[in-house]
Amino acid sequence: MFFHKQELQFKSKPSKPDAVYARKLQEVLGGQYGEITVAMQYGFQAWNSHLPGKYRDMLFGIGAEEMGHVEMLAVMIAQLLEKAPLGITEDAVQSDPTVAAVVGGMDVQHAIVAGAGARPVDSNGNPWQGSFITASGNLLADFQANANAEMQGRLQVARLYHMTDDHGVRDLLSFLLARDTMHQNQWIAAARELQEEGLESLPVPSNFPIKKEERPVSYQYQNFSDGAAAAEGSWASGPAPDGLGEFTYHDGPTTSAPMPPATQPDARYYGTTPVPNRVEKIAGAVQDKLHRE
Amino acid sequence: MFFHKQELQFKSKPSKPDAVYARKLQEVLGGQYGEITVAMQYGFQAWNSHLPGKYRDMLFGIGAEEMGHVEMLAVMIAQLLEKAPLGITEDAVQSDPTVAAVVGGMDVQHAIVAGAGARPVDSNGNPWQGSFITASGNLLADFQANANAEMQGRLQVARLYHMTDDHGVRDLLSFLLARDTMHQNQWIAAARELQEEGLESLPVPSNFPIKKEERPVSYQYQNFSDGAAAAEGSWASGPAPDGLGEFTYHDGPTTSAPMPPATQPDARYYGTTPVPNRVEKIAGAVQDKLHRE
Amino acid sequence: MFFHKQELQFKSKPSKPDAVYARKLQEVLGGQYGEITVAMQYGFQAWNSHLPGKYRDMLFGIGAEEMGHVEMLAVMIAQLLEKAPLGITEDAVQSDPTVAAVVGGMDVQHAIVAGAGARPVDSNGNPWQGSFITASGNLLADFQANANAEMQGRLQVARLYHMTDDHGVRDLLSFLLARDTMHQNQWIAAARELQEEGLESLPVPSNFPIKKEERPVSYQYQNFSDGAAAAEGSWASGPAPDGLGEFTYHDGPTTSAPMPPATQPDARYYGTTPVPNRVEKIAGAVQDKLHRE
Amino acid sequence: MFFHKQELQFKSKPSKPDAVYARKLQEVLGGQYGEITVAMQYGFQAWNSHLPGKYRDMLFGIGAEEMGHVEMLAVMIAQLLEKAPLGITEDAVQSDPTVAAVVGGMDVQHAIVAGAGARPVDSNGNPWQGSFITASGNLLADFQANANAEMQGRLQVARLYHMTDDHGVRDLLSFLLARDTMHQNQWIAAARELQEEGLESLPVPSNFPIKKEERPVSYQYQNFSDGAAAAEGSWASGPAPDGLGEFTYHDGPTTSAPMPPATQPDARYYGTTPVPNRVEKIAGAVQDKLHRE
Amino acid sequence: MFFHKQELQFKSKPSKPDAVYARKLQEVLGGQYGEITVAMQYGFQAWNSHLPGKYRDMLFGIGAEEMGHVEMLAVMIAQLLEKAPLGITEDAVQSDPTVAAVVGGMDVQHAIVAGAGARPVDSNGNPWQGSFITASGNLLADFQANANAEMQGRLQVARLYHMTDDHGVRDLLSFLLARDTMHQNQWIAAARELQEEGLESLPVPSNFPIKKEERPVSYQYQNFSDGAAAAEGSWASGPAPDGLGEFTYHDGPTTSAPMPPATQPDARYYGTTPVPNRVEKIAGAVQDKLHRE
Amino acid sequence: MFFHKQELQFKSKPSKPDAVYARKLQEVLGGQYGEITVAMQYGFQAWNSHLPGKYRDMLFGIGAEEMGHVEMLAVMIAQLLEKAPLGITEDAVQSDPTVAAVVGGMDVQHAIVAGAGARPVDSNGNPWQGSFITASGNLLADFQANANAEMQGRLQVARLYHMTDDHGVRDLLSFLLARDTMHQNQWIAAARELQEEGLESLPVPSNFPIKKEERPVSYQYQNFSDGAAAAEGSWASGPAPDGLGEFTYHDGPTTSAPMPPATQPDARYYGTTPVPNRVEKIAGAVQDKLHRE
Repeated sequence: MFFHKQELQFKSKPSKPDAVYARKLQEVLGGQYGEITVAMQYGFQAWNSHLPGKYRDMLFGIGAEEMGHVEMLAVMIAQLLEKAPLGITEDAVQSDPTVAAVVGGMDVQHAIVAGAGARPVDSNGNPWQGSFITASGNLLADFQANANAEMQGRLQVARLYHMTDDHGVRDLLSFLLARDTMHQNQWIAAARELQEEGLESLPVPSNFPIKKEERPVSYQYQNFSDGAAAAEGSWASGPAPDGLGEFTYHDGPTTSAPMPPATQPDARYYGTTPVPNRVEKIAGAVQDKLHRE
Repeated sequence: MFFHKQELQFKSKPSKPDAVYARKLQEVLGGQYGEITVAMQYGFQAWNSHLPGKYRDMLFGIGAEEMGHVEMLAVMIAQLLEKAPLGITEDAVQSDPTVAAVVGGMDVQHAIVAGAGARPVDSNGNPWQGSFITASGNLLADFQANANAEMQGRLQVARLYHMTDDHGVRDLLSFLLARDTMHQNQWIAAARELQEEGLESLPVPSNFPIKKEERPVSYQYQNFSDGAAAAEGSWASGPAPDGLGEFTYHDGPTTSAPMPPATQPDARYYGTTPVPNRVEKIAGAVQDKLHRE
Repeated sequence: MFFHKQELQFKSKPSKPDAVYARKLQEVLGGQYGEITVAMQYGFQAWNSHLPGKYRDMLFGIGAEEMGHVEMLAVMIAQLLEKAPLGITEDAVQSDPTVAAVVGGMDVQHAIVAGAGARPVDSNGNPWQGSFITASGNLLADFQANANAEMQGRLQVARLYHMTDDHGVRDLLSFLLARDTMHQNQWIAAARELQEEGLESLPVPSNFPIKKEERPVSYQYQNFSDGAAAAEGSWASGPAPDGLGEFTYHDGPTTSAPMPPATQPDARYYGTTPVPNRVEKIAGAVQDKLHRE
Repeated sequence: MFFHKQELQFKSKPSKPDAVYARKLQEVLGGQYGEITVAMQYGFQAWNSHLPGKYRDMLFGIGAEEMGHVEMLAVMIAQLLEKAPLGITEDAVQSDPTVAAVVGGMDVQHAIVAGAGARPVDSNGNPWQGSFITASGNLLADFQANANAEMQGRLQVARLYHMTDDHGVRDLLSFLLARDTMHQNQWIAAARELQEEGLESLPVPSNFPIKKEERPVSYQYQNFSDGAAAAEGSWASGPAPDGLGEFTYHDGPTTSAPMPPATQPDARYYGTTPVPNRVEKIAGAVQDKLHRE
Repeated sequence: MFFHKQELQFKSKPSKPDAVYARKLQEVLGGQYGEITVAMQYGFQAWNSHLPGKYRDMLFGIGAEEMGHVEMLAVMIAQLLEKAPLGITEDAVQSDPTVAAVVGGMDVQHAIVAGAGARPVDSNGNPWQGSFITASGNLLADFQANANAEMQGRLQVARLYHMTDDHGVRDLLSFLLARDTMHQNQWIAAARELQEEGLESLPVPSNFPIKKEERPVSYQYQNFSDGAAAAEGSWASGPAPDGLGEFTYHDGPTTSAPMPPATQPDARYYGTTPVPNRVEKIAGAVQDKLHRE
Repeated sequence: MFFHKQELQFKSKPSKPDAVYARKLQEVLGGQYGEITVAMQYGFQAWNSHLPGKYRDMLFGIGAEEMGHVEMLAVMIAQLLEKAPLGITEDAVQSDPTVAAVVGGMDVQHAIVAGAGARPVDSNGNPWQGSFITASGNLLADFQANANAEMQGRLQVARLYHMTDDHGVRDLLSFLLARDTMHQNQWIAAARELQEEGLESLPVPSNFPIKKEERPVSYQYQNFSDGAAAAEGSWASGPAPDGLGEFTYHDGPTTSAPMPPATQPDARYYGTTPVPNRVEKIAGAVQDKLHRE
């Protein structure tokens, strides 16, 4: 169950209106790595969890915090739009190029659809979608996904920080940056703890019987491009991070197999086939005709 | 530039037709973490790279390999569909429940749209989409994303392994599992190397002036749920992985701010506003009328 | 069957070109609540109707009118784009900021993809999609959806009215506003008539055996936020609109249940599970190995 | 801010596993009218609200409750999948048609992607998306949208009720049906209250200067189909619900305008144009050539 | 303007219910090449047309016919679903594998969302979308697109023909096949006529100044794969169809250029850059700090 | 298998930065008819091919070339973005309207998400998706689709040519225009060759038993609009291109059928039905109740 409190975790109030920035801020609200993504991702990971206790508690705890971040951004966006020119004719789009530019750079659905309100979309107006999230049931894989989301998210907030000099907005971003720092650290710590406790290990999934994979190619760097420097990295020689093998380097593939022959499906799919099959195709049609009568 | 060779990296031939499995295999071809995703993701990361040399060479090298994996899976799917019942009336859907079940569990677009061929979609028929990939320009973040993709990918292949007993299919999966093992290891190694070389460090992005974030909350675990076990983890006390702070634990938020007042945008958006604003709204309309005449 | 006549229901001709406005107008052509939505929505409701006669006749009659509105908007958009600067170099984007702003605010696919033509997308260029429509087979629910669509639609047209002072465009919008007024009224009238005729009633669906719902919570306002004013509304005390119950007010839930234990699916999904299950997971793998040999 | 409590609002535990039903239940979790939709819709309406007090309090209060419903359904789905055959080979898909049918009818991503967990998708595996929600800033329009969502939602739950005889599932559905009854009633009550308080009235938006619409067609039923029964309804004669006009009936349109002439955009879009313009097109190209040199 | 008549162009009535087939039929109603696509495609081509007269008349004429085909299919689907088992418990899914298979193979949203009605989606339940259509303003290109749509469409209908033996359904498909034959022929005829009248020619767009393209590579077949048979085709030697060049064959590219150096964008995007740029990055940050104070 | 070489097929280097143009160029990289589309389309057609030899070799050969075009465009876009103002505050958006206009017209995700890099999206930021491609297994249909893709693609490149005067960009476009000229010619040549070799003929699919279609309407132009000029075309009289029939012209349909009666599905879908069925609906509910007890 979720309970809502009509307070924010941190102040969220711009110094001045800015419709163009409101649009940009949508990225970290409703984009691939925005706050809706992490709120939903941690929620689904918790609901699907097979392990009660500290890991699930953390998923629930941070998931609920992220829902509050969704709110902080939505409220900020609504305020950025509040007094900004959004294309009403008096905004004088025609005559004042600065105003025209503002209107040109904003998300027009902020005005037309939401009446100066936030929307569940990214900075290009693409709706948030369920396929932005990851929840596999394997916590080592999923904590990796979470660390990834927090890294991409903090990177985007850092970029956005340089796109405004509004003190109020920057204050909110400072807060989000700090929380992203925390959450990056925490998912990395949790991934380590999973491994230290022996619950999971590399490679993911660790319990798949390793003998069933084609081991001769499990630690080969096979270079399908012509950049020789690829051989210099720690991924081309030395022990692999999973502790189970030694890297080797190869130009191109180490195995190959002939392309299988072209398929010959039922003639009634009317694919283009060689002549013998065409006869069959017509025959099939005849048979079909007989079958019907 | 890309060059194609009409050979495969490994044999890809099923022992028998299986339309239902063909559908399932679409997940690792065209799904969120399928081969199209990694091929495109590594490609875009390379094209957008700001760093020539070994890291970019590796992105190019593995990206091209993954395009070959797309091909291996597409060819396998076409063969799984080749002689399978796909719903043609002679397949006797009506009378034989086993055949009916097969047809019921397949991707019907395999038959109707592709004529017994593979498609750029996931196992539910959702088209592959560009928003499945990540390419931010920050290699530490992106290698984390890559390790994530390889983990989710190997996990899905492992699950698929148990959903068939076809030796030919399992052979291909064994190969893909091994390559995923390699690629998981290699992105983790590359992420480490980036840090050892001093190119990047935690938290991502590491060059953002850390003083600009709200440091007092950078290492606080704030638990917005009621699970007490959340305090037991290594994310709630002790040093943080980034080496820059010490975790602390808190029930709920440590800061709060009042909800900002409701916004009052221009009356001509016709939002519902308190009475005084309604007067303004009508006034606005009058003004607009005057303005027009 | 549909027949087309090369006339419009009302004049649709702008006074001057305006590419930025053409983009905005796409919202009411191809957006969530645009004319394609209502044309398709009323069509599918009619085709799926279980009731011949006046209700279905109305769905057919208005659905066909809305297809004509799609046409009026498409024709208007093409004209708005006809002589507007769309980014051709002579438009002097570089040197004249006003022109640059115009080009910046337009839908660039209008020029690149459609060659100065209308497109089946919203004002952010998101394609129209089938999931914008509602057609459930229950006419009381669907007329509510229709009234909703006409309200959101009229609201958007009203906002667009203030974003231009082109007399020709405003004339068309005046017409659309009037038709939306009509259609709002008509769906509300139709919803009432359904109830007066005893065909449907509240709550929707009215024929579901009411005893099967958990009646003790059917009229409880349960407030999961901390705003005390929520108790002041007519939804917190007094008779409910369906005439079957009396509203009561509660802070928070009136019932609760423990969170069910974490699930323990088959070990071969490789989810992260507590230790005993890990043994089982390995065992499962062994069993699988035996099974294969 | 949101706080989470590790309890549910009502029991959510199936009597037996049922993967096919788990898939169906996804509709009311992640579909167009599922719980994610209403949770997000009420949230965005509150964050964008221009009116403090009871209406916003209600939006916050019910929005938070709906987030808890998301959780109840996700938890139920995970349990329905827990012990169900999901396509692992021992499930004997090949030989037992009943098991094959179960596997055929399930959402295969439940197994492959989520490892027997819930997903943010509908019953056909389409991801939930931001364009499912409505939040316009006009509360009369939005409460209409909310009533619509609750009606469609309750209708779907009622249908799902008849698709299972699992007592545990039906118990949860009974609870959801009751809450949908409550929420239908409450949005209808709130819409009435808005009107009684003079904040909004019909047609929406009520403050748009009515004289600016083309009043002669504001109450005309224009029948673009040939069903004569359309004239019998209360939408074809008598007073309109908004109290501002009287319905009249017309076969077909009452106004018409000629189709505007075909547009002639810049020749460099290479559209197909009549001969004179073709000359211009070539000229344009020449001019362009000159321009470049 | 569009007018609707409550008759169909041809009979559309199944002999018996068939929910699985209803789902398949959705492909040609709401799929990439379904009837909604062609109806909308011809409509937008007409509305965007720059040429009055016979070509536009044809677009309007056939577009309106296709809207009627949408209707015929929707009505057929509703009838196929009318008495079919759709998952209601009495359908005895549990005990009868044949019924279970039927339910497993149907589109569950037909039952849950549409209450046994048609939907604007394809056979996998993906919503129809605006990006399925093509309308560029260049009629030669667009008639090619139209011929393509009619070919893919007829191919799908032909496949669907073999997936049922219901005489009523086959009758409707016979009619659609014939109309697709007509429309294929007609778009090919129209494309020819455009060229014979000198309005357009190959390559599309024909009026682009041909000297501006890199002519030395305009007729070279460059084979980036290793299949030698590629040189045998009429595309590798002899005159090209546009009459302006002669084909030649080459193994691989005939030109090449070095990969441009890696880009070095502003340091405040926090991309991973070589060391010198890292200094700059820090400097940038310092500068930014100074700038703020 | 695919092999990558760190060279480009042609030079790809702009003369100056231009973020607005970078956004426009995304259309031919990741749009409906961009290079990702053709690369994937030819790949899937080859993998699904039923015919070994020259046609498949060509599909492989050109598919691989197109992957190289994806790369050329991605690299160009990254360079166009490299030094362009992307919204960093020093770009002085507020004060300089020209800069503001540039920022307003760019794809903001280029900066926020990709850090000045290319993305797999179109010029409106819509992600590339698998439903952009066509691969049916019937080569005559698919080569028609390919010719269509090359025509629309060349048309878009031609338009883009006029939207820049950057010599470096124009050089790349000149090259792409020439390759599109080649590929248009080559798919048309291949389609002819298929027919000359007797592998396929018109109408597509040519092997479907023609007697099974409703031949009386196979060559009738039925005009559902009122434009009389439609009768003047070569599609209204004379021999049809498939050589199997003679065109005739008709105003409107030549056949018709009554609209089937409204469907009456199971009462437990709670659709709105006439009175007798309502009784049944209640009865159904009662029966259901009895059934449960």
